[in-house]
Order: sequence, then C-alpha cells, then structure tokens
Amino acid sequence: MISSIKNFKMEVNEDFIKKAEILKPILHESINYPQNIVKINKTQNDYEVIKLKKASNISEFSMGKGDSIYLDFGDHNVGYLSFKIKSVGSPPDAPAHIKIKLGEHPCEIVEESSSYNGAISSSWIQEEFLHIDVLPTEISMPRRYAFRYVEINVLDTSPKYKIVIESIYCKSVTSGDRKLVDNIKCNDKELEEIDKIALKTMEDCMQYVFEDGPKRDRRLWLGDLRLQALTNYATFKNYDLVKRCLYLFAGVTQNEKRVGACIFTEPKISVDDTTLLDYSLFFITSLYDYYIETKDKDTLIDLWKTAYHQIELAEINIDENGLLKDSEEWWCFIDWQENLNKQASCQAILIYVLKQAIFISNELEDKLHKNKLTLLLNKVIEGAKNYLWDSQKKFFVSGSKKQISWASQVWFVLANILSKEENKSLLERLKKENPKINMVTPYMNHYYVEALIQCNMMEEAKEYIKYYWGGMVKLGADCFWELFDPNNIYVSPYGSRIINSYCHAWSCTPSYIIRKYYTN
Amino acid sequence: MISSIKNFKMEVNEDFIKKAEILKPILHESINYPQNIVKINKTQNDYEVIKLKKASNISEFSMGKGDSIYLDFGDHNVGYLSFKIKSVGSPPDAPAHIKIKLGEHPCEIVEESSSYNGAISSSWIQEEFLHIDVLPTEISMPRRYAFRYVEINVLDTSPKYKIVIESIYCKSVTSGDRKLVDNIKCNDKELEEIDKIALKTMEDCMQYVFEDGPKRDRRLWLGDLRLQALTNYATFKNYDLVKRCLYLFAGVTQNEKRVGACIFTEPKISVDDTTLLDYSLFFITSLYDYYIETKDKDTLIDLWKTAYHQIELAEINIDENGLLKDSEEWWCFIDWQENLNKQASCQAILIYVLKQAIFISNELEDKLHKNKLTLLLNKVIEGAKNYLWDSQKKFFVSGSKKQISWASQVWFVLANILSKEENKSLLERLKKENPKINMVTPYMNHYYVEALIQCNMMEEAKEYIKYYWGGMVKLGADCFWELFDPNNIYVSPYGSRIINSYCHAWSCTPSYIIRKYYTN
Repeated sequence: MISSIKNFKMEVNEDFIKKAEILKPILHESINYPQNIVKINKTQNDYEVIKLKKASNISEFSMGKGDSIYLDFGDHNVGYLSFKIKSVGSPPDAPAHIKIKLGEHPCEIVEESSSYNGAISSSWIQEEFLHIDVLPTEISMPRRYAFRYVEINVLDTSPKYKIVIESIYCKSVTSGDRKLVDNIKCNDKELEEIDKIALKTMEDCMQYVFEDGPKRDRRLWLGDLRLQALTNYATFKNYDLVKRCLYLFAGVTQNEKRVGACIFTEPKISVDDTTLLDYSLFFITSLYDYYIETKDKDTLIDLWKTAYHQIELAEINIDENGLLKDSEEWWCFIDWQENLNKQASCQAILIYVLKQAIFISNELEDKLHKNKLTLLLNKVIEGAKNYLWDSQKKFFVSGSKKQISWASQVWFVLANILSKEENKSLLERLKKENPKINMVTPYMNHYYVEALIQCNMMEEAKEYIKYYWGGMVKLGADCFWELFDPNNIYVSPYGSRIINSYCHAWSCTPSYIIRKYYTN
Repeated sequence: MISSIKNFKMEVNEDFIKKAEILKPILHESINYPQNIVKINKTQNDYEVIKLKKASNISEFSMGKGDSIYLDFGDHNVGYLSFKIKSVGSPPDAPAHIKIKLGEHPCEIVEESSSYNGAISSSWIQEEFLHIDVLPTEISMPRRYAFRYVEINVLDTSPKYKIVIESIYCKSVTSGDRKLVDNIKCNDKELEEIDKIALKTMEDCMQYVFEDGPKRDRRLWLGDLRLQALTNYATFKNYDLVKRCLYLFAGVTQNEKRVGACIFTEPKISVDDTTLLDYSLFFITSLYDYYIETKDKDTLIDLWKTAYHQIELAEINIDENGLLKDSEEWWCFIDWQENLNKQASCQAILIYVLKQAIFISNELEDKLHKNKLTLLLNKVIEGAKNYLWDSQKKFFVSGSKKQISWASQVWFVLANILSKEENKSLLERLKKENPKINMVTPYMNHYYVEALIQCNMMEEAKEYIKYYWGGMVKLGADCFWELFDPNNIYVSPYGSRIINSYCHAWSCTPSYIIRKYYTN
C-alpha cells in the first residue's frame, strides 16, 4: 500500500496556500464527561460493554498496582482528555505510573497493543504511559484522541498509597456547527437513525480540514474529501471548508504539478508523496460538485488549470486503443478489496470525470480544452466498449485476467456509457451473479448506492443503505466505520481491526443520500 | 520496609516552614551533551560499555522500527533531557513512537523493565514512551532524570519514513556551586579520585533540599541529611541548605511532634508517615553538627525544643533496666542488612545522641534538661553495659537471640562507653572474627570508618576507604552508590539492582573524611 513518487518534490503555489489559510476554520469546543463505568466482556463473536455504575461515582474507586477502570463516554469524541488525580493512603513515596488506553471500539481497549503486527504503524494505537511525580494534580493530555472508551490502568503506585481519579472529561473539537443542521423527517426511523450517525461521523471529521478519520490518518485525502463535500452540501453547508481544501490540493502539488492523494497540514502545508490516479482525477469532480453547489465562478477560474492538468497527466497512460494501462503497483485506490483489479474502474472514473471537465470548460467558455476533452472522452469510451465490455458475460472486465468485480460494474454504470436500461440490467445482473470480488469499504458501497439511484432503483438503494450502514448500527456503531463487511466483522486491510478507524468520513454519505432523495 | 504511624497526622509549625522556605536555594543550570554513541555488552559478571562513535555524529543515524541508539553522557547528570528529532524519507504519515530509557548504571538500560518484580515501586524505572505527532520538532521532557546512559528505541514510525535525532542534551541542575570547592592535594591519587567522585555525588544530590538520591527517592531523609551536612561543611559549606532542612524537619512533624524520617517538598512541604527511631534522634545530631560548624545560636535556640522532645519520645521505649525495647517492626534503620537486629545499635545511637544533647543543653544553659539528660544517659549506659555486653565473647549483643553484628560494635565504639583501648581492641576483634551480619550500605560503612578514626586507627581507616569506596571506583562508578557489597555486585534490598540508586548522598562522606583527616 505504498505508492511513493521517485525523486519526489513538491511544487508550491503560495497564492493558493494563502487563500486556503485565510479560510482556516475556528474549532468549536465542548466539554464531555464519561457516562458510565463499565466492564467489557468477550462474547462469542465480539465484545459487549456492561454498565457497572454511573461515571459520576468515579471518585469512589481507589486503584493500586494492577487495577483498571473502564469508562464509556456514551458517544464518540474527538479531543483532549483531562483528569484530576489524587492519592489515598500514605503520602505518595514514588511516582504513580499509569497506562491510559483510548478506543473508538471496545476491541481497541481489550486487545493487547503488543499483539498488533499489521501493515501500518502501531503508533496509531491510542495508548499512553504516564509517570505522575506529584499528587494530587490535574493532567491535560497534549495529544488529540478519537474515542468513546477509556481504560485507566495502574501499573504501579507503591505499597503505601493508591490513586483515585476525581474527575475526567474530554474537551471535544470540531469545525462543524451542529446548530446549523436541521434534523430530518422522513417517516422512517431507521433512516433517521442512520442519518444521525452519519451526521456525527461528518461532524467529528470536520477539523482544520476535512479529515479522513480523526483517529487515523487525521489527514485530508482527496477521495474522502469528495464524499465529505457532497455530504456537507446537504448538511453543514460549510462551503469555505471545501474551498480551503481545494486550494490546499492545488497549492501543494507533486512532480509535474500532479494533485497528490493527500495533504499534511503540520508542521506546514505539504503534499504527501502518495499518488493515486483516481484521487488525482477526483480533484476535478470535487471542483465540479463545489461549483454546482455554490456557483463560485472565481474559484472555478482559479483552479481550472490545475484541474485540467490532471487529465493531461492521465492521458499519458492511455494507449492507442483508448485504454488506461494497467499496473501491478498501488496506482489507483477504488476500494480496499485486496484482489481487485483496478483498470476498468479507473477507466470508468476517467470517463465520469471527463464529462464533468467538459461541463466546466463549457461553463468557462474554454473551447480549446473542451474540444480536446471531447475527443479524449470519445476515445476512452470507445476503448472501454471495445476492450472492457464482455458481450458474452455481459459484464465489464478488468486487467489481463479479465476480472469481473462489483467495483468495475458500479463505476461503469456511473460512467454512464450504456443505455438506461442496460445500466439497470447490469446492476440487477451484478446483484444476481454476485461476483466474488466484492466491495469492502463504505466508500465503494456509497458509489453502488449512487449507481442504484442513477438507475432510479430508489427502493433498492434505500434497502441497501439499511442493510449496509444499518448493519453497523445494529453492531452498536456511534459513528460509521472505515471498513465494514456485513459477513466478517474482523475485516481489515491492515492486519487487525484494532487499527481500523471507527469514525471515517467516507462513510458519512447516507446523510447526503437520505437528505437528497428520501426526505419530503 | 513499611513503618507507617497509625492515625497519622501532621503538625505544622508555620513559622519554621516560613524560615525554611526563605532559604530555598536557586538551582544552577548547565548544559551537558552526550560524549559517545556506545553499545553495551554483557560480560561474565556485568556489562561493559564500548564506544562506537563520538556522539556528535548522532545525526548520521536514521532509525526505523526496532532500531535503538545508546548514548553515554560520560558522567552522571541530574536534569532535564531535550532533543531535536526529524524524519527522513517520505513525509511522516503516522506518529513516531519511541521509548526513552535512562540509567545511572548500564544494567538499568539493558535489563527489561518488565522483569522487575521487587519490593518498591517499579515507577522509579526511568523509561518513557512518547508519541510524536509532528516532525521535525524539539522535545523537552518535563520530568527530571538521574542518568549517565540513554537508550532511544524506535517502537514504530511507518514503512515510509525513519527518524533522526539531530541533537540531544541535558539541562543539569544542582544547588551546589562547585566553584566554591577547592580540589584537594593529599599525595594519594586514589584518595584524590575518591574525593572527586564523592564530591560529584554530593553535588548531584544538592537540589531544593539535600536529596537522598536524585533518581530515587529524591527526598530529604534525616539519616542521609546528617552525613550530607557533615560533608557539606568540608566542601560546599552551604550552611543555609542545612539550616533549611533542619527547619523543614521541625516545621512538619508527626503525631506527638515526632520528627519524621523524611520530608516531601511537593506538592507542599509535608512529613512522611514513616517513623524510624534512629532517624528521629539524628535530628539532634544534625543540629549539634550544624551548631559546632556555624555557631548559629539563634537556630539552636529555635530548634532545641523539637530536638529535646525526640529524647522524651525515645524515653517511652526504655525499660526499667535502661534498655530500648526491641521490636519486630521496621522501627529503626541502621543499615539495609536484612538480618540485622537493631536493638544494640539503636541503644548506642541513643547514648551517642544524648551526649550531643547534653552539650547543647549546656551551651543553652538549660540546666533542668541537662540534668534530666544526664540521668537518662547514665541509665542507658548502665543498661547497655549490664545487658548488651557479652563479657565472654567480648562483643555487644542485640535482641533476644543475642545477635553479634558489625553494626552493633561500630555504634558502641561511637557511643564511646568503653575505654580507648577497649574500643580499639573491639574493632580489631570485629575485623578478625568478622561476624556474618555485615554492613551493606556506604551509610553504615561510613560509621565504621568514623569508629576507626575515633580509635586513631588512621591507616586502617584510609585503607578501608580505598577498599570500599575504591571498590566502586574500580567498577566504573562516576558517583557513589546507595548499596555496595564488594563481594556481591548484585546486592539490593529491593529485589533487583536496577532499582538501586547509583548516586546516593549517604555515600559521599569520603570527601568529609579525606578532607578532614588526610589532607595537609
């Protein structure tokens, strides 16, 4: 999962960065207290959280070496943990040594950090070891955490004293202002519940940028931004935050002015050296969506050159048959499905994006580029029809092994190169034949729902939302997760679900879909 | 090793505390850099530190998951560690997670913290786990450490980047001003070397109070203070710091105005609930020594009542035969020799202290108390001669099992109730018969040297210093240790030598002895 450009260097457009920084939001703070002292039991398949006492009784618990207390904040929090701690017994004759573990999901609390041996850094595990030399004291932990559950484990005090947590709270932060968002009414309690959780997911990912997940990676990714922005238009309507993110992507680009897959904002604004073709192309989609929503032509004019250039960079990889070259590298995202061949999906995305680019060029009366884009669009549609459509199997195929996957069909429906009827029957065939190469992220599942809606399969789309996002609700989700496979709660592309993000922005789209299509 | 008073409460003399706080010293700061990058090898009996490179080359080392670097600061430091850290490779896409371990002795670095299962708190182990979210950065660690060696171990970065320590230093602190102390000339290189190390030990324990050890317990203990003060008079001559400590002990006392064994200065001045009879009595000795050195009669007048009262409290435990009652509890310190019966040593200390108390009462023309003290002195000398002296074995015996120990003989020589010749032959007999119950701390060994000198056995005393403290020098000590048994480098009363203190104030007395008796 590493896709680093060789001889990577960053190109900076200071003017764009300035425009982005002016739009840096102020964070709203709120103080949240734990609800309950709990225990976490292992069940046959997962964990269950059992309430022991109201958390307001926390100061009744004195803890010595080896003792733990488990807290449930009752909802997801993104912020800074503070607590008051004192000693009981003799005066503390040694430091208190405590471990604090924070988790969005009970598995993060219960499973040993040392057991993690996955593909991405164990440094994302939210576990800290503190020595407290002087008691009583109040500790404000400096790092930001994303969590609902907290374990405080006493590693040692001394035989002469124990510790008591007198109080504990989280100063939670977000740049989303929930007061601006109305509750929905749609005569469907399930959808209302899903919308509420999606909205909370969105809110907790709105920080100084749209973060992918506040636990991990805490960063602005383009594919994620595209879905966050769409949902934002239906909810918080924080146009400045989208605009800021667009200027950030255009302000720091990679070699050849390629828009990167993600942006770091600390210690300074910079682009990562990861490059993913679909994500680069979604810069155009994100700009298109933004313009459709806001009619902000100044921004469209400012960023059009950067956007158009992403097509030029993609074009280099199109062969004489109008086909995107496939690759063994991690060149394109699409989904975390590990066996997915991405050629067809990415070809479809290119078509999808080209149409949006043509719309923009038309809006800007940029005839020269409009013509070039139109020629290219025809070429890649031809290529797709000639080489990726298997007229026997009636599926789009991908790569040299002609793989048939869910993602390829979904993206070709969205690319909309078949007739309405053909698209609809493709989706019906997809559901019926259910190819093994499925979808594992809410991100990809969102595009499936979009495809259903595009084919006017409104009832199917609604039921799918209830099946998929509703599946997480049934498992106790307070935010929507980065990964979800209804048939395997242990799914993770990283080697362990303890490193998965359980509040992930690309999963917030039900609020967009429900509010756009299923409310009165 | 727990001796807590039941229903403990603290009595505060605000006037004394004010006087102590006015004397709170300013700490001198110095910046110290590591000397070498090293490796630590296991040898047959211990560890050896091998230089790999000058530490100025540290920024050449880039470290990823699992990598460690070991630094030798070249000397003992008490202070605050700061370092600059940056990333190399791709932009850091996950926090850096590092472990920093600090040790006075190589064993603290090499031996696993988790292997420690001793009697006192593992929280003294100087090991921290840090998550660093933003790189590059400069980190100033907030806790004070006592160390010479540092290990920096990278627990994780991410597959995309490594970390580099660009620079690292310690801001060392002490209230001792080394410029005030002359080097000695005594025509004996070994003694000069021992004096230098003793002086460094003293310096590093001089903080806002005389600490017992800057690694552990970092606290003002009375028995330790007594020896620090003596050494201070021969070296730094920081009379205010001794005076401050005396006022602290008198300012916060235990139930019945008993002087406690030790004092905490954070979060506020308070006395520990530990009570040790010899330590309480040494308040008088410390006041006596202070007055002999300074002639500060105001302080003597101020603190005499507290001092005298310690005799009254001791008197309660004297039986009709003039003998201190023995106890199974941890009622008296003397030494860490775990099988030592303390009755005889403490009886001797009471005699030793009573003589000093009589001197003070005489100085203050306090006839009433002088008479009472004289009667008591006679009674306890009689008791000792009648019940603790075994005229057959010609040794002092202790407890119901009539134990013969080194400590009992040493303290009775210092109590000086036999003739000069008898004292000398007692020490000679002690050396010859070498009872099994030996001395394990430099603290007790100091009193042995004092006893030799009192008997004018100057050559023996000098050779013993070279044997005992010189033994630590041969093992590479840069400061003198809390515990040292020349026959067993693994000695520890706590279950593991990794928790021992390797810069311990009660070991600094060679500077006092050498400067008083062995310089021109």
